[in-house]
Parts: sequence; C-alpha cells; structure tokens
Amino acid sequence: MKRDVDIPLGYRFSVAAAGIKYENRTDMALIYSEREAVAAGVFTTNRVKAAPVVLDMKRLRSATARAIVVNSGNANACTGQRGMKDAESVCVRISERLDIPEKHVLVASTGVIGIPLPMDRVYGGLEALTGGTVGADMEDVARAIMTTDKFPKFASRRIRIGKTDAVLSGMAKGAGMISPNMATMLCFLLTDLAVEKKTLKRTLREATDRTFNLITVDGDMSTNDTVIMMANGLAGNSPLTETSPGYRRFRTALLELMDELSRMIVKDGEGATRLMIIRLRGARNAADAKKAAFSVARSPLVKTAVYGRDANWGRIMAALGYSGAFIREDSIDISINGIKLVGNGLATGRDPEASDALKHGAETVIDINLKLGPASERVYTCDLTEEYVRINAAYRT
Amino acid sequence: MKRDVDIPLGYRFSVAAAGIKYENRTDMALIYSEREAVAAGVFTTNRVKAAPVVLDMKRLRSATARAIVVNSGNANACTGQRGMKDAESVCVRISERLDIPEKHVLVASTGVIGIPLPMDRVYGGLEALTGGTVGADMEDVARAIMTTDKFPKFASRRIRIGKTDAVLSGMAKGAGMISPNMATMLCFLLTDLAVEKKTLKRTLREATDRTFNLITVDGDMSTNDTVIMMANGLAGNSPLTETSPGYRRFRTALLELMDELSRMIVKDGEGATRLMIIRLRGARNAADAKKAAFSVARSPLVKTAVYGRDANWGRIMAALGYSGAFIREDSIDISINGIKLVGNGLATGRDPEASDALKHGAETVIDINLKLGPASERVYTCDLTEEYVRINAAYRT
Repeated sequence: MKRDVDIPLGYRFSVAAAGIKYENRTDMALIYSEREAVAAGVFTTNRVKAAPVVLDMKRLRSATARAIVVNSGNANACTGQRGMKDAESVCVRISERLDIPEKHVLVASTGVIGIPLPMDRVYGGLEALTGGTVGADMEDVARAIMTTDKFPKFASRRIRIGKTDAVLSGMAKGAGMISPNMATMLCFLLTDLAVEKKTLKRTLREATDRTFNLITVDGDMSTNDTVIMMANGLAGNSPLTETSPGYRRFRTALLELMDELSRMIVKDGEGATRLMIIRLRGARNAADAKKAAFSVARSPLVKTAVYGRDANWGRIMAALGYSGAFIREDSIDISINGIKLVGNGLATGRDPEASDALKHGAETVIDINLKLGPASERVYTCDLTEEYVRINAAYRT
Repeated sequence: MKRDVDIPLGYRFSVAAAGIKYENRTDMALIYSEREAVAAGVFTTNRVKAAPVVLDMKRLRSATARAIVVNSGNANACTGQRGMKDAESVCVRISERLDIPEKHVLVASTGVIGIPLPMDRVYGGLEALTGGTVGADMEDVARAIMTTDKFPKFASRRIRIGKTDAVLSGMAKGAGMISPNMATMLCFLLTDLAVEKKTLKRTLREATDRTFNLITVDGDMSTNDTVIMMANGLAGNSPLTETSPGYRRFRTALLELMDELSRMIVKDGEGATRLMIIRLRGARNAADAKKAAFSVARSPLVKTAVYGRDANWGRIMAALGYSGAFIREDSIDISINGIKLVGNGLATGRDPEASDALKHGAETVIDINLKLGPASERVYTCDLTEEYVRINAAYRT
C-alpha cells in the first residue's frame, strides 16, 4: 500500500525500467516542474566528483531549473571525459523531448563507480520517462533511485505562510557509503513556495549541515552526493528572503523535513537493526562536541556492541578518549536509553539493565555529558552487523 | 608444536591461570630480567588511559626496570582511584615476592573496560607467577596475553655488534581495537644489548611510528596500548648511543622485529581473511601520503570488497577523494596484486583478472600512485568480514 503524502503544486514525476544494472525494477526517474523553479544544490566534498555532480554544480550557478533526471545502478563516476559527455547527452535528450533549455536540466546518478553509463539503455529509459504515460508519484521516484536501500524514502510538510498554503516535499536514497559531508545519498526537495535564490541556497546549505551532514553509516563518503532543491513559486507567495515574515517557518519546516529524511537514511543503513542517536553535551566548544559525537557514532566497536545488545560503555569511553576532543575521564556521564551507566567516569553497575533495554525498540539513544562547557551535538548512526559486510562484499559481483 | 626462537640472555618468564575472565587458560604472565635493564615505553595517545598505563608512564621516567606483570581478561581501565590502587598493589606484591624495588616493576592489562580487577584472583595469579615453578618461554607469555587473538605473536632477531652476539625478542597481542597511534596492543621487547636510556627511548618511539602506528584494523584506539622495551646489557657490549658503530644495525633489527610483529597483529585482525598492504606513492608530501594511505586502509567499503574478492577500485578512488590529501583524479594509477586496474584515473578493464587474483594468497597488495610528488607511505590492514562483527557483538557477553 502506498503512503499518501502531500505534493507541492506544479511538479510531475515519471519513472522507467531501463535495465541499467537491475532487472525487473525501475531505475530511472524524472522530476519535472511545470514552471521554471529557483534551484540550489549541495554536493559531495569528495575530490573525486562524479560527472553529474560536476555538471550540476556548473548549471546551478544560473538561477533556475525545470527538470532533474536520475538513474540508479551506475554512478557515472571515474568515467573521465566520456562520463561528462554522457551526462550532457542525457540533459540534451531531455531538453529536446520536453522542449526546455538544456541548462534547465539537472542530472544525478548513483550506483557502481568506474563503468561508463550504458547509453543505449539510458536513451531507452529517457524515451520512456518522457513518453507521456500516466504520471508517477513521489514514492515511485523514491523507489527508482534506490540501490541497496530497503525502503523508499520520501516525506512532506504542509506550511502556511501569510495566506499562502504550501508544501515542501523530499525524496531521498541512502543506505551505504553514508558519512558526514554527505554520502551516496541523493535528495531532491521540492516546494511550490517562491524563494529568492540566495535565500534558498543559504538555507539549504545550513539545513544540510544540520541534518545530512550529521549522519554516518560507515564513514565512507561518496563521489555522487547530491541535494537539490527546487522552488517553483506556484503557491503564489511573494518570494521569501531571510527577512520575510514567513521565513523562519519555512526554515523550520525544511529542517524538519530533512531531519526526517536523514533519519530514514540511517534507519535503512546497510544491515542496520538499530537507529542510534548520539546526544552529546557539555563539550567545551562546538568543534569538540562534533568530534566527540562522531567518534562514538563511527566506532565499529560501539556499533557492534549495540548490535550485540551489550551496553558496553567502556567502548564509548575509549571512543571519546581518542576523539581529539578535550575530555576529562572523571567528569563523564553516559546513559543508554535513559539508564545511567557511567557517573563521573565510573561504572554505576546498571549494565545488565541497559543491555536488556537494548533488546527492545528500534532506536538506541546514547546520552553523553562531558560536563566541561556549553556545546552540544546530535548525530544519527546505526549499528554494524554481519549483514552490512555481506551486502558490501557482494554488492558489485 | 612450539616455534623455536632465540631468547636474549638474562630474561625469565612465567605464566599463570588466574581465572580473571577466561577459564582453562593462562591469563597472567611475568617477564623478569636478572639484571636491572634500561627501559623505555610508548603508550596510547587516548585521553582515557588505563591505570597500568598511567603507572608505567610515571615509572619509566626513572632509568631502569626489572619486571613486567601482565594480565589479560580485564583492562583495568575506567576504574578510577581503585584501579590505580589495584595496579600499584600488583607491583608491590611482585616487588615483595621477587625482592626488587617496587619502582622496577611495570604492569600491563588488556581486556574488558570498566570492571575493577578481581584482586583475589589476581593475587592468586601473582603467587603462581612467582612460585618458582618450571620456567615458561616466550610463546607461553604470548599466549597468556591473548584476548581475541587466534595465534600467539612472538619473534626474535639475532645480531652481531662488534664482537658481541646479541638477541632482540618481542611478544605482542593485538586483534581488535587496532588503529594508528597504537591499539589494544601490548608489545614487550627484550634485548641483552646494553643501550643508553635516551637512545633506547628515541629509537623505540621512532620504530613504533614506523610499525605499530602504521597498522589499522578497525580504527578504534584502545585505552591500554603499551610497548615496553628492556635492554639488560648482559650481552656485554658498551652501551649503544646513536653514534655507536653498531647503532644502525640495532635500529634496523628492531625495526624488522617490530614490523614482523605488526604484520602478525594485522594478519590476526578480528575475523580477517586477508592481510592488506596499502602502498601509496607519488603524494605531494608525507602528511598527504599518510592521509591517503590510511583513508583507503580504513574504508569499510574497500575492506569488504577485498573480503568479497571484488577488485572494486571505485571504492579506492572514493576513499582517496575524501582522504583530505591533495589528489588529481586524472593522474591516479591503481594496481591490485600487480594487476593494473586504473591508469590516469580511468579503468583498464582488468577487474575480472584482479578479482580472480584476490581469491588466492593470504596477502592483498594495493599499489596507488598519485603522481604528484615524492612522498610515499605503507600501511597494513586487513579485510572486514562478518566474523569481525560476530566477534565484537559477542565479545563481552
């Protein structure tokens, strides 16, 4: 059964099964705005950038976009000049079929690295995407962009700004290679609000830092990470700027939406059985808070302990100790799922109770208080399981 | 059958089964020098340091040592004041039983964090260690200090300096929580050479940086990492300094010995099926070389690909890209086990051949040339398997 979510005005979707790598499933999607939309993007900081990322970064310097074409199964990364030409050809074909300027077409890819796109199949897919068949919905798009994801990720928020009702929606994929500063994650955000270009760009950047850049699955960072947002203005408001009365509401709704999508990505971390929420406070400063929280979130030993339902706080202490953050062993408090395990650096003896609590519920909350200052940070991650290894040992072969 | 290795003059060993955590095996060891030995140590850089580490760091400021007491099964870490007192009590007891000054006794622990040492059992073990029974050998010691290790790690080198024949020996344990800047690794190095204190300290530090600090299993760094070296001078040479004629030979032998032990640790990485050797060259500078090599060595995706016998060089490119080192995608060459997979950033198409090669042999060599400068680095790691997860999900419970 499909989950019903609101869709902003003026967007249409289609999907196709091009057989790029997978069989018997959709692997291409088209997101299309009936009207030119203000657009902004945030991309991987990996020095090895896939062709579609390079192309989009260039295109998004101009103000507007109409369409995003996505494929799964092939990342079009490490494919050199040919990869760039292929990405451009995709845009040219779409611009011809939809009769829109080529510069208004964005492109995204996810999948295996280093193999050129099979362009014959891609062209077949592009025909199907623009063939005027019955429209797809956001769930269909979210499914078509999945790689090792186990469920489609999409969500919406309805907001009212002045007299304008509007919608913010997002579709994402994640699963593996998820790390701060993005991941092989793709996320497409759409709204019918009108938002001034600079404001859209800055707000998207900020919200990405507060959401997708605070999740980690395995510490690997992809060559293809992409967050693109389109705002087509069909809701009828006057373009939002950072001083508009409705701006804060827009910003909050976007943050909430992206937070929800980022949780979905971690929850669907390859092989994960638990969403882990690391809440760190009491750090001397923001940099230390982030270092300490990520050190715990990334520790394979902490992640396997959670998978083993073992409240092994010693591994958390060790991860804090090597995080690079300033800590004092004898001022650290640690709780797991609300059960205090460490007070001022020493065991409380409640490990069995906490290990038992780990057996229940899909979420594990690790609260850490360094008691050294005012800074805090929150990071999402997931446990590390045999299944993660199995998926990644078999993924390409 | 026991492996025969040379033992330097004047050292004696004993082991005991104290039942600290494990049953039916030895878990305590004593290394004893008949004569006061010049001693030096290198310890974890984790801010959370186990009690024995804190104690040894203090003791090694003085020039000499006679004994090292080690236990497995309990790390005596995160145990506060009580942990410090327990570590001191161990030394006091040994000093009484052996009639040597307390300050000449060093102590090391490995195992679970956060639980106080069961001192009644430890005292029982100390009695047995000093009970004058038949002497143990280095293999016995190497076995007694194992935690999740699958084989005992020990080795020797025989060297001749001038007219003096001497031996360098080492015993180590590793397995999990292995990362640069040490690991839950313990290593005890013994020689009958005379070495001047400052020289011993500096050479040990340098050799540790070139060996144990260039290995990684899972990126976790322990609270207990310890490398201690004793040089008792019974070989009869005049104390080595950095300007002695034999110094370079000593340094080389020590490096080789520690390299051999560090390879053993990685080979026995938890769940590992392949020793991976990352050889990176052509970096602009040493810092970049290290960053790039470690980024590949630590990538869970690269490690699972090797486990899956998949020559997935795209994951290597991605890891280089996010390493923080300066790279140019189009100048990178990558080979696996001598088979060139990437030339100037592009696929050579030999992946099937390389994947096939991955099926054979216990070692996987990944050669990377960035072609940007003169710096190189070599890092040892191992593949990531379901078994790693299984071991670490079940380790404490």
